[in-house]
Amino acid sequence: MLDVEKLLAILADDLQNGDEIHAFFAKNPNASIAGLAPLNTAQPNQLSFLANPRYQEQLTHTNAMAVLLTTNAKPFCPTHVLPIEVKNPYLAFAKLTQVFAYTPDILPDIHPTAIVSPTADIGKNVQIGAYCVIGENVVIGDNCQLSSHVVIEDFVKVGQSCQLKTHTFVGHHCEMGDFVVLHSHASIGNDGFGYAPKGLTDEKGWQKIYQLGKVVIGNHVRIGSQTCVDRGALGDTLIGNHVIIDNLVQIAHNVQIGDGTVISGCVGIAGSAKIGKRCVLAGGVGLVGHIEICDDVTITGMTMVTKSIKQQGSYSSGTPMMQTNLWKKMAVKIKQLVKE
Amino acid sequence: MLDVEKLLAILADDLQNGDEIHAFFAKNPNASIAGLAPLNTAQPNQLSFLANPRYQEQLTHTNAMAVLLTTNAKPFCPTHVLPIEVKNPYLAFAKLTQVFAYTPDILPDIHPTAIVSPTADIGKNVQIGAYCVIGENVVIGDNCQLSSHVVIEDFVKVGQSCQLKTHTFVGHHCEMGDFVVLHSHASIGNDGFGYAPKGLTDEKGWQKIYQLGKVVIGNHVRIGSQTCVDRGALGDTLIGNHVIIDNLVQIAHNVQIGDGTVISGCVGIAGSAKIGKRCVLAGGVGLVGHIEICDDVTITGMTMVTKSIKQQGSYSSGTPMMQTNLWKKMAVKIKQLVKE
Amino acid sequence: MLDVEKLLAILADDLQNGDEIHAFFAKNPNASIAGLAPLNTAQPNQLSFLANPRYQEQLTHTNAMAVLLTTNAKPFCPTHVLPIEVKNPYLAFAKLTQVFAYTPDILPDIHPTAIVSPTADIGKNVQIGAYCVIGENVVIGDNCQLSSHVVIEDFVKVGQSCQLKTHTFVGHHCEMGDFVVLHSHASIGNDGFGYAPKGLTDEKGWQKIYQLGKVVIGNHVRIGSQTCVDRGALGDTLIGNHVIIDNLVQIAHNVQIGDGTVISGCVGIAGSAKIGKRCVLAGGVGLVGHIEICDDVTITGMTMVTKSIKQQGSYSSGTPMMQTNLWKKMAVKIKQLVKE
Repeated sequence: MLDVEKLLAILADDLQNGDEIHAFFAKNPNASIAGLAPLNTAQPNQLSFLANPRYQEQLTHTNAMAVLLTTNAKPFCPTHVLPIEVKNPYLAFAKLTQVFAYTPDILPDIHPTAIVSPTADIGKNVQIGAYCVIGENVVIGDNCQLSSHVVIEDFVKVGQSCQLKTHTFVGHHCEMGDFVVLHSHASIGNDGFGYAPKGLTDEKGWQKIYQLGKVVIGNHVRIGSQTCVDRGALGDTLIGNHVIIDNLVQIAHNVQIGDGTVISGCVGIAGSAKIGKRCVLAGGVGLVGHIEICDDVTITGMTMVTKSIKQQGSYSSGTPMMQTNLWKKMAVKIKQLVKE
Repeated sequence: MLDVEKLLAILADDLQNGDEIHAFFAKNPNASIAGLAPLNTAQPNQLSFLANPRYQEQLTHTNAMAVLLTTNAKPFCPTHVLPIEVKNPYLAFAKLTQVFAYTPDILPDIHPTAIVSPTADIGKNVQIGAYCVIGENVVIGDNCQLSSHVVIEDFVKVGQSCQLKTHTFVGHHCEMGDFVVLHSHASIGNDGFGYAPKGLTDEKGWQKIYQLGKVVIGNHVRIGSQTCVDRGALGDTLIGNHVIIDNLVQIAHNVQIGDGTVISGCVGIAGSAKIGKRCVLAGGVGLVGHIEICDDVTITGMTMVTKSIKQQGSYSSGTPMMQTNLWKKMAVKIKQLVKE
Repeated sequence: MLDVEKLLAILADDLQNGDEIHAFFAKNPNASIAGLAPLNTAQPNQLSFLANPRYQEQLTHTNAMAVLLTTNAKPFCPTHVLPIEVKNPYLAFAKLTQVFAYTPDILPDIHPTAIVSPTADIGKNVQIGAYCVIGENVVIGDNCQLSSHVVIEDFVKVGQSCQLKTHTFVGHHCEMGDFVVLHSHASIGNDGFGYAPKGLTDEKGWQKIYQLGKVVIGNHVRIGSQTCVDRGALGDTLIGNHVIIDNLVQIAHNVQIGDGTVISGCVGIAGSAKIGKRCVLAGGVGLVGHIEICDDVTITGMTMVTKSIKQQGSYSSGTPMMQTNLWKKMAVKIKQLVKE
């Protein structure tokens, strides 16, 4: 439940019409907001938001109790709806979601089945779930939450207020800052894929290059489920602050990712690639190794990046989807481009 | 071992020549089928099948004891082979595989190391393996099998006869119907990748949008190893009945997948995409978010889908593979298409 | 620390100037090598290497104590640096990395929380970590190391000196040779994606084909984190010797991979594809099922392989990356190729 005090506190930075809201709740002392919903499905006890002007039509018909909106949109708000004027309705909505999130009722504690090395340094108010294994000389900051089955190897440093979800793994000596979230099955600090050929025949095989670096993760980083971040070969793999990474992403050894960059699902980044700040890599993008992407670059979905990008902007590759029979003809034409 | 009674029972719906089979086993009372194999490698104690007419030549030389085949193919069956006439030999073969599958000899029981909340409601004949962790108010239906290290968070509902393999994870409040199989390391119900930008500089970072929805999975669904299905942001992520999903697939928040649809390995589906019934997404396909694919659509491997598909049929993108030196020339030509 | 005896022993096969090195350490009896680093960052107590001639300029300015290099490069080595002449500096460097790798100080032993079937046959000098579960009739060879939370099902055979990292899973009856490494969360031996349609409507759904084969892995194989190798349907899935596989790779049922082949991250290989010896599949490559790739084939990143390759060489597909606005024009031109 979201009451007026909590609402005003969370939106304090951005709220334009606090008086109007106070007046509404003074008139309706029993009113409270039971949930969040889109404009078109919101019930009379729910709060909604108008962030994209193309949904303005929905505002005029909504059944929501209240709507987050900008000053420009306020005139379109029906009279039975309480307008909550903010500069950034989407950000305001995002902040309010936290109130309605499920939080299990668990006291911070170390579960009796967790195996924690006596040399580990565990902060205050830390929760360590069932069947976790915490190695030698690990440091875990205050207010961290480790779900069940989390494995942390020796000498790892975890900052404050981090959340390591079920079945995550952090390899020895890796480090992360504060407010880092690892979703289930994330793998941090496996050995990078470094091998030297022993010779030209397959019988000679491959000489493993032991990976002597680690992974260093900044503050406020989000790493998705099943995502891998490999440790560096000589230097370290570096993930900046405010980097958010989705599921099933491969980040190879010695990759560097700048602050604020977004990496969507199924992206693969090969070894020693360096990505700037505030970049956006859409789903399925692939980067070859040893290239550099400058700041403020957007790469659209499934683009193959084989060389460095030195100028900010948006980049793409691939061909448009078409019906398969047409596509087969197109493939023939493409081949003809180089066969003539 | 597959004896005649079991064979006839499993194929009852489809068998055309039951009398002939009875007569064969009456004459050969000690005959039984020791295994299944392709036509070209089957031994005289094995059963094979002819589903694709292009293997008809192999039928004439097979050493199998018996072959599942259609009435049309029966004339080509050698005299030393017992023909088993069915309408759909491939489906008949599929049904018979179950007889030869390995099933460990474990009594349904809760392993002493499993941690099961006292508020969980566990059905009859349920097996819960070593080191499982089952949260508050979870409901698990009859005849379910949980292998070791399965983690189920609070308020999850699991139907009857489900199989949750080793290291799988199901997040709080998610629901699945009956006969659902999750392969090892599948991740159901992590938070979707929802963030609102706090501002234009990377120092401001990202406001997490708490994901208030869940995942709802129908009946007879198969989810592959390392596959992720994220929980919805406001509404739910929905997987219909009879949906089969392979390994390493990313299904983002609020995706909807219709009944009977097939999703192959390494597919990525971005948020709020809606896929119809009986679709087939081949390996490596990528879908952007907020699009809609109608029923009965096939998308060939590695196709990039950037807009809705409103007509059934087969769709593709990409260029044909060629030798790398030719491909480099092709790439130049492609660039020239827009540079002139 | 790497002292002169260890250095000479590791490089014995390849070292060209042993006398010169002995003389150096005789003159500098307290010298020892504290670490490895690239030429441009090496400190006076570190060793570096020159493998690629384009870094020769860096050699002339390096602060390293010693540098691995070829006879050809030796004249460019500054006088304050000890040249270590070898035929293959990169391979020599790779061998030396092992000296500096972190190895936790754990005695080979079975952790008291590991659940090991009494019918399992565990070799000498084996380490089994916390919360591992080892099934019936499993065989594990000498000198294997299983980290925590490893699950091995019944009848699995693991050779000697294998390393199974945290949260790995090996399904029943699968086999691996000696010196195999499975990185965290690798999944070996899940059921392949085999289903027969029960009919044309989604209500009829899919008949599971029970997967009766296993996975057979050779010697000196490396399997990455979150990688899946599915068991065969009738025959087995086969991974040859000296095969190295990176993270997040999908290897479907009945795939065969020849000796010495390299598979990079995010590759997907569909069912029954057969790949030859000494092939290199770069990141994000996709192969359809039932095709054959001959020996010594390289496939560049994100290439879509839809038919067999019968001649060695390098193959590619895809279009070059360009600015998104140009790319949109290109997409129109590509469509026009078949619309006229």
